[in-house]
Amino acid sequence: MLVVGEKINTSRKSIAAAVEAQDVDFIREVAREQAEAGAHYIDVNAGTFLDKEVDYLCWLVEIVQNAVDLPLCLDSPNPQALAEAIKHHKGEPMINSISLEKERYEALLPVVTDRPCRVVALCMAETSMPTTVEERVQVGAALINRLTSEGIPVEKIYVDPLVQPVSVDTGMGTAVLGAIDIIMQDFPRVNTICGLSNISFGLPMRKVINRNFLALCMASGLSAAILDPTDEQLMATLLSVEMLLGGDEYCENFIGAYQSGRVSTI
Amino acid sequence: MLVVGEKINTSRKSIAAAVEAQDVDFIREVAREQAEAGAHYIDVNAGTFLDKEVDYLCWLVEIVQNAVDLPLCLDSPNPQALAEAIKHHKGEPMINSISLEKERYEALLPVVTDRPCRVVALCMAETSMPTTVEERVQVGAALINRLTSEGIPVEKIYVDPLVQPVSVDTGMGTAVLGAIDIIMQDFPRVNTICGLSNISFGLPMRKVINRNFLALCMASGLSAAILDPTDEQLMATLLSVEMLLGGDEYCENFIGAYQSGRVSTI
Repeated sequence: MLVVGEKINTSRKSIAAAVEAQDVDFIREVAREQAEAGAHYIDVNAGTFLDKEVDYLCWLVEIVQNAVDLPLCLDSPNPQALAEAIKHHKGEPMINSISLEKERYEALLPVVTDRPCRVVALCMAETSMPTTVEERVQVGAALINRLTSEGIPVEKIYVDPLVQPVSVDTGMGTAVLGAIDIIMQDFPRVNTICGLSNISFGLPMRKVINRNFLALCMASGLSAAILDPTDEQLMATLLSVEMLLGGDEYCENFIGAYQSGRVSTI
Repeated sequence: MLVVGEKINTSRKSIAAAVEAQDVDFIREVAREQAEAGAHYIDVNAGTFLDKEVDYLCWLVEIVQNAVDLPLCLDSPNPQALAEAIKHHKGEPMINSISLEKERYEALLPVVTDRPCRVVALCMAETSMPTTVEERVQVGAALINRLTSEGIPVEKIYVDPLVQPVSVDTGMGTAVLGAIDIIMQDFPRVNTICGLSNISFGLPMRKVINRNFLALCMASGLSAAILDPTDEQLMATLLSVEMLLGGDEYCENFIGAYQSGRVSTI
């Protein structure tokens, strides 16, 4: 399971304040704690700043890659911000995200084909948000086919089925789970990724819902998640589910995490 | 999801002591707290007492059915104990369990066909413990076919895939999950049931493993579980997974449990 650490996002107040104050130490610390907790990529998102987003995102790329020896997930709905930020990135970033929306697709295609990178392919069509399993699978398959025909290896593509709140429609959980199942069966070498927190929007006990949703997504074949790796209960879920699904030989990752005190034991 | 409350089992020290002392009040209280926490059946098991098992099991049936207005799950590997205990039971009990082991099957068949009851069909063959998905499915299908041919309605059968520790073999989780998947697909009206705690035998953080295993089993289609309904974190998992799988209209069970304070919120 590939873990993308989600904490450096200016939608969080403390991160927004640190970015505005150009507080290098704070950002470095949030990067480091996620790396130590087991993140494989560090997400950077300055999307709340709109007119200053490009500058701030580029600044974050520099600061975070100086702090930790990990690749970043460059996260923005704005193709121009991604195009600029990638220039500051060493190694192979993850680009979050391309979609079937015409303008976004056309603006990002040259960015993601210009150099090796991993690409999050969001199941968002030109005109509408997907609601059913079938719509997600259709958009996901179209993105996989188009991106691979442009030369992007299928194993570098991370399809995001687009998680929507179960409080709005109780079918939103199974819509995502079913889409992951089918996409992973139809394209065995592709990856799937999602954020967790949208699923619990509008409900109490959000952390409980989010971590159980992670378990269900993993059972459906999810290969990557954007999450808070410093959440010790969430990581306990991730490691125990990986073990229960047969992906932890001799249970050694699970036992190791327990022994190191990195996960919640209750 | 049908919940069988597991706490009245003499393998637990406090229960064994209460049964030996014929402490009616204690047993009544453990029955009541499980009923209040949401159990649909109360399991009674006096298997540790061997020569006194029959008497103690019959006593438990009387005491527990006086305390709560719920049917019981009569739980013993000993057909004679089940045959006697059922005589004391009002209404329709669950019998736990019949298996393909010849002696057990033949001794229990008259008991489970004599009057309406629900039957746990344990995936244990005549000669060996199952290890693979296929062995479990084969034994489960054989039991379903034999029991239905004896007149037991398929929807009264609860196939138990027999959970074994993932610490012994990392394939033991997927062996159970795969078996539940196939049995529920092949026999759409049958039920599946399991206990959770064997999965985590020999490992730390057992409660974390057990509740995540419950989530995975539910994703595979498990329809009933033998568990501790007073475990507030376990019940939070059960209710959130039920909701995420689309089985909680308007999220009302989940929100109701939150509002009543019956589940852990962290």
